[in-house]
Amino acid sequence: MHIVQPGMEIDVLKENSKIAHENFHLMKEHKIKSIDFMGSIGAGKTALIIKIAEKLRAKGVRVCAIAGDVTGVDDYSRFEKSGLKAFNCNTGHECHLDANLVKKSLAEINMDDYDVILIENVGNLVCPADFPLGTDYRVVVISVTEGDDMVRKHHDIFLHSDIAILNKTDICDAVDVDPKIIADDYNKLTGGLKNIYMCSVRKDEGVDEIMAALKL
Amino acid sequence: MHIVQPGMEIDVLKENSKIAHENFHLMKEHKIKSIDFMGSIGAGKTALIIKIAEKLRAKGVRVCAIAGDVTGVDDYSRFEKSGLKAFNCNTGHECHLDANLVKKSLAEINMDDYDVILIENVGNLVCPADFPLGTDYRVVVISVTEGDDMVRKHHDIFLHSDIAILNKTDICDAVDVDPKIIADDYNKLTGGLKNIYMCSVRKDEGVDEIMAALKL
Repeated sequence: MHIVQPGMEIDVLKENSKIAHENFHLMKEHKIKSIDFMGSIGAGKTALIIKIAEKLRAKGVRVCAIAGDVTGVDDYSRFEKSGLKAFNCNTGHECHLDANLVKKSLAEINMDDYDVILIENVGNLVCPADFPLGTDYRVVVISVTEGDDMVRKHHDIFLHSDIAILNKTDICDAVDVDPKIIADDYNKLTGGLKNIYMCSVRKDEGVDEIMAALKL
Repeated sequence: MHIVQPGMEIDVLKENSKIAHENFHLMKEHKIKSIDFMGSIGAGKTALIIKIAEKLRAKGVRVCAIAGDVTGVDDYSRFEKSGLKAFNCNTGHECHLDANLVKKSLAEINMDDYDVILIENVGNLVCPADFPLGTDYRVVVISVTEGDDMVRKHHDIFLHSDIAILNKTDICDAVDVDPKIIADDYNKLTGGLKNIYMCSVRKDEGVDEIMAALKL
């Protein structure tokens, strides 16, 4: 739900920020690394998280996921089916996770059982930007299927995230998109201070580089 | 910006609804048909609107577009480049158009010059659902690249729109998606009362059927 009320907007963001700090410290106390995966519908967030979790488990790292969605258990089920322990977090109506929803999910998790928590935000390239959850890193995942103008249209989320990931580079030709345009826009927007990583989760290309960037 | 304040939420939606009615009646006075194209980023809303406008112009129908985006002029420029007169409507920060933003755009348009106004909403499959703009039809456009779980995850927008359009069916194989699953979910959700149309804007397949459904 949305409202343009400057005073209240600030209160909401302030309250979110406070709880995000609590989440951060709670996870740090338990030596947990955490990552917030933001991005539009169909960018491949679920598939990327599954792939990263597989690679982490192969290294003996204990990992779980929080599946954020407006409604339903689709992503939650995909995680569980892949062998990744998951916790479902439905927003009900809201188009993004917030720190308080994540706080509630963290309360369900036995924190001593995990080293890494991967959080999948609601599929949306606008709203999650405003709501840090208290993770170590915030990542934005986009896909070549979204066209080459994503960065130009959505400054906030690219500025508020630590790295960007351009997924599905294996089908650039099928969708007539040149990844170089997206990378150039990103570098221009961020002044070259942050990196955009190309990957194809399906072909397992570029995922190791992303994990290295996220210190996983 | 987002807030969970039940009382105010209702006021915002009520105010939106009031202005949407004004927009509707204003356009009716000028015998204008209008359509709100909602859907996620990369679903192909811009390309579909350009294609529909081309076909309308070929029939002698006078058409213009309102390009809704958070920021920038990308869609606006694509419309203008294609020969479609467009009016840019940036939300600044909001993740959806609302009736008041459209009211302002309508004030820029010489209404006697047009028979049809095609409105492209902000790329988002959640938030636009709550904000009718006052158009004759509300359409939701999704793409096979978004996966086969879109309908299950986003009830609201499919329930609040008049028809659904599944675009990019020409690349189903490249993205491993079965359009039948999406159509089945849609028919289950809507009880068979509404229709989902398959199309490939790029190959000009299915667009005429969509125009017939929208009485264009």
